[in-house]
Amino acid sequence: MRVSELSVESGVAIATIKYYLREGLLHQGRQIAATRAEYDDSHLRRLRLIRALLEVGRLPVAAIKKVIEAVDDESLSVHLMLGTAQYALGPTIEPEPGEEWDTARGQVDTLIAELGWDVSPEAPTRDELTQTVVRMGQLGMSTDLMVYARTAEKLVAEAEMDTVPFDGPREAAVEALVLGTVLYGRAFDALRRLAHESESARRVGGSAREVPSGSDRAG
Amino acid sequence: MRVSELSVESGVAIATIKYYLREGLLHQGRQIAATRAEYDDSHLRRLRLIRALLEVGRLPVAAIKKVIEAVDDESLSVHLMLGTAQYALGPTIEPEPGEEWDTARGQVDTLIAELGWDVSPEAPTRDELTQTVVRMGQLGMSTDLMVYARTAEKLVAEAEMDTVPFDGPREAAVEALVLGTVLYGRAFDALRRLAHESESARRVGGSAREVPSGSDRAG
Repeated sequence: MRVSELSVESGVAIATIKYYLREGLLHQGRQIAATRAEYDDSHLRRLRLIRALLEVGRLPVAAIKKVIEAVDDESLSVHLMLGTAQYALGPTIEPEPGEEWDTARGQVDTLIAELGWDVSPEAPTRDELTQTVVRMGQLGMSTDLMVYARTAEKLVAEAEMDTVPFDGPREAAVEALVLGTVLYGRAFDALRRLAHESESARRVGGSAREVPSGSDRAG
Repeated sequence: MRVSELSVESGVAIATIKYYLREGLLHQGRQIAATRAEYDDSHLRRLRLIRALLEVGRLPVAAIKKVIEAVDDESLSVHLMLGTAQYALGPTIEPEPGEEWDTARGQVDTLIAELGWDVSPEAPTRDELTQTVVRMGQLGMSTDLMVYARTAEKLVAEAEMDTVPFDGPREAAVEALVLGTVLYGRAFDALRRLAHESESARRVGGSAREVPSGSDRAG
């Protein structure tokens, strides 16, 4: 198909497609004339992935480039390719050296070891969790995360990973992982707050049929 | 205690305390001389709550005011007070009228009814979940959220709500809810991504002992 058809099919503006081509996010089409290139399904699939990373994953273009490089590097296992995308989705954490940090980091490493999880010692997600544990400690909250870890483990093993097509095109696996991580994460977060409201009503017997004062939103 | 002692005890700068007093976020101390007011534990507790809402909840001052009003309004049940804080923590969602929105909203309402949850029909969290369901549908993802809902329900009923001191000072209950919602939410999100990595290693057999290309972070 021509670039105009690719634009219609993908819903991505021609100018944006040309920007992705210049940036190397989208591979060039097959040149069939001096001023005309031919695009195919692989371009459509790639555009879907770029939009997922950009609009749902909210990744900056530099991070998207790294993910695309991992998708294109066929020597990289599917596991490492997915890891590149997964790590890019997390916030960038600067470890804060000191005793407090080291204690929290030790706690995180012990938790992962006790669970028997196969997680890289270099995974930035360990730092991310460490930072949250430090903050919890400072605020006097319990840092025992075993029940959360077991809950996450069950959810991921029994439901989440089944939505990732490990045997399909590499783009499709990354796209499913990114969309699933972000959107099911967002859904779970809202469901958790809905469950809080319901459980609070059950425990303290307040009616959930009234609108709390200060809420001026329409339902 | 004097304002200088309140500052030392709370770790909040005097200028900031005076700002909270002017904004009405912090109640005035007992005036014991023309230029001297006396503060007590209630001020310390309030400052802790303000910091939790500001630094962990990332709420704007206007939203913090609404939460504080709900804490101060003793005629408001603990359930409705917590609801005010909980609703303030969610993003502000503008419903997008149309068939797509109505279908997704119907799905959310049906899910909550099937679960038997006691959630206000006006809860903005319903809109929040609706928006995520709309996005999932547009992206061709499964919008069956029952397994996520059951997981959230179990976590909240068996662990989370136990950390909220319903019988203590009103500030303490709100503080625990806000800190727990945000920080355990953040921890769960990181744990879920760690479980993804581990489950991916198990399913496709990649070694998690290598660092994915594109990661330049130290562990």
